[in-house]
Amino acid sequence: MSLKDKIRIIEDFPKKGISFKDISTLIGDGEAFKYTVEEIVSHLKDKKIDAIAGPEARGFLFGASVASSLGVGFIPVRKKGKLSPETLQIEYELEYGKDILEIHKDAVKPGQRIAIVDDLLATGGTIDAVAKLVELAGGEVSSLAFVIELTELNGKAKLEKYDVFSLVKYDI
Amino acid sequence: MSLKDKIRIIEDFPKKGISFKDISTLIGDGEAFKYTVEEIVSHLKDKKIDAIAGPEARGFLFGASVASSLGVGFIPVRKKGKLSPETLQIEYELEYGKDILEIHKDAVKPGQRIAIVDDLLATGGTIDAVAKLVELAGGEVSSLAFVIELTELNGKAKLEKYDVFSLVKYDI
Repeated sequence: MSLKDKIRIIEDFPKKGISFKDISTLIGDGEAFKYTVEEIVSHLKDKKIDAIAGPEARGFLFGASVASSLGVGFIPVRKKGKLSPETLQIEYELEYGKDILEIHKDAVKPGQRIAIVDDLLATGGTIDAVAKLVELAGGEVSSLAFVIELTELNGKAKLEKYDVFSLVKYDI
Repeated sequence: MSLKDKIRIIEDFPKKGISFKDISTLIGDGEAFKYTVEEIVSHLKDKKIDAIAGPEARGFLFGASVASSLGVGFIPVRKKGKLSPETLQIEYELEYGKDILEIHKDAVKPGQRIAIVDDLLATGGTIDAVAKLVELAGGEVSSLAFVIELTELNGKAKLEKYDVFSLVKYDI
């Protein structure tokens, strides 16, 4: 299946010059969504993963689906103030300004192997923060899996110490 | 499986007097999460559902997992400004103040049968807004499925015209 045919491109969104990759058309297509989840499951299933972690909100769509299909737990990583106490926090750089992500303190058992799933790998800043949070909580980050990779932004270089997998690559 | 054993209760959160039902411990348990998704799938599978809709962010965890398991599309319902253009909006009442939810204008094909999945049925205000949005987009709301129902808040009465299903009931 060509997943690129299922992803809607919106030019100049969210701002001029950006060619936005809209995954809502992919997840809205039952066959394409199931195929996407199965491809990520297939990549992860022999890696002895104990749980999947993913950042809100689009990471929940793919990450939770992969977790329930694999029969492992899902660990939500959320913006500050959204999780019940008690949490660990990390501050990370955005294009303009900073943001804070949180994970439950007890979400990871020591030494558990965690795969991180998200919709998009761009510069890698968010996923680098998610990976550091998982490690802070005591987990070992085993794999990073994405639906889309924007290769020009070179997020893979920033995440070179991890196994990085993506289903669809765009060079713009 | 007793799902109540998997749900963490946090007293006086997010404020004094509230006994918060924390589903992060349920989704963090691989077997419990898979069982939960399978139970909702089992309830919906003979209802000729064309797609699942769910509100961010916790609705994404269960709704997307159920959709990919059923092999149908998932329609995200998000807070204002989070979806790419173009959207339909609905304003709805919260305990204090108002909020706006959005759905993509083209997310539903005319006459499609949509099931709405969320983690929690409390007063039913949010889900009533989600159902109205789905109908505004041209869909027929077939079923509402929840992991948890807080029976004292009587959300079921507000949603009486729909088929309402919940896995775990609490009377406080």
